Amino acid sequence: MPTKPPLCCCDLEGVFTPEVWIAVHHATGIPELKLTTRDVKDYDELMRMRLGVLDRHGVTLGKIQEVIEGMDLLPGARAFLDRLRGAMQVVILSDTYYEFGMPFMRKLGLPTLLCHTLETDEAGRITGYHLRSRDSKREAVAAFQGLGFRVVAMGDSYNDTTMLRAADRGFLFHAPENVKKDFPDLEATDDYEVLLGKLLAAAGLAKP
Amino acid sequence: MPTKPPLCCCDLEGVFTPEVWIAVHHATGIPELKLTTRDVKDYDELMRMRLGVLDRHGVTLGKIQEVIEGMDLLPGARAFLDRLRGAMQVVILSDTYYEFGMPFMRKLGLPTLLCHTLETDEAGRITGYHLRSRDSKREAVAAFQGLGFRVVAMGDSYNDTTMLRAADRGFLFHAPENVKKDFPDLEATDDYEVLLGKLLAAAGLAKP
Repeated sequence: MPTKPPLCCCDLEGVFTPEVWIAVHHATGIPELKLTTRDVKDYDELMRMRLGVLDRHGVTLGKIQEVIEGMDLLPGARAFLDRLRGAMQVVILSDTYYEFGMPFMRKLGLPTLLCHTLETDEAGRITGYHLRSRDSKREAVAAFQGLGFRVVAMGDSYNDTTMLRAADRGFLFHAPENVKKDFPDLEATDDYEVLLGKLLAAAGLAKP
Repeated sequence: MPTKPPLCCCDLEGVFTPEVWIAVHHATGIPELKLTTRDVKDYDELMRMRLGVLDRHGVTLGKIQEVIEGMDLLPGARAFLDRLRGAMQVVILSDTYYEFGMPFMRKLGLPTLLCHTLETDEAGRITGYHLRSRDSKREAVAAFQGLGFRVVAMGDSYNDTTMLRAADRGFLFHAPENVKKDFPDLEATDDYEVLLGKLLAAAGLAKP
């Protein structure tokens, strides 16, 4: 183990699971739910739009949770994460909400998840959302560095890039072409095996 | 879920596992290894003494890891932690070392562990130790609070008390009489079921 222990910050949607809102779009047929942080860079703008259309179409939290329970992990995700967790500490940093994310955590073997919370009314309508902070992924990386860790990170989208740049070493995984083009300084791969090798090397660990 | 998501910081030795050094004391018969943070409040003094006696008796890291692999969790520890992790995020804060702690993490279902690292030579002798910081448990609590979490915590010993006091709510668990007497402001219990109820209530969650 290197003197400074390594810790890996991982995104969730797009790297371990499909995108929740895309799945809800498919399940409900609501066209606006197709947009993600890959398309709209302002997260608040995106969320206000999402909650507005859910409300107009009468889609409750319960309905969304039903969709999520039916979603599978990406092929190879669990095996990759198990190997990574055997080698170093791992924390999932996501802009999802605990109400959406916990079914995935159970499927992934309960890694620690740092994300946000939703507000619902008695009828199960989603009435609001609470972000822990504006740039929560980057702030979490900085906090772990402040606690004495060497932080490596991986993610796929615009909302991961401040985290990837703040980390001692960050990698794009499954990133769409526009993200790769906008962030040519971030090394990119689409293969879990390659990613594992890069993360372990960046953490100063030998591949198990 | 409350607006501010809850996160529970848990000690390791004494609350989920027996004390490693006590077990090494029994396995090696070295009398000085009986002393713990319960007895010696200055951690550096304690560690320098431990490494000195290990060296004099030729006890390697491999020998200690053998002892650790043979140690069981405390009865009820895994069930308690599984229920706690189903209800909120959990991070283990320990003054142990990854080289000692990881076998326990595997038995506990791989929760996130924030602790320290050892330095060894080619012969497997423990030549040094690296603390991430002087008051790492309290600093971790403050970091999670800074990231927007409501932090609850539990631990048994002197080295937990700054963490327990820094947390939004902290509880002593399995604490010896001298710790309870020195920290009468910290509520104490020896029962996992009671502790779970207290942690969930302190986190603003209903008991599952």
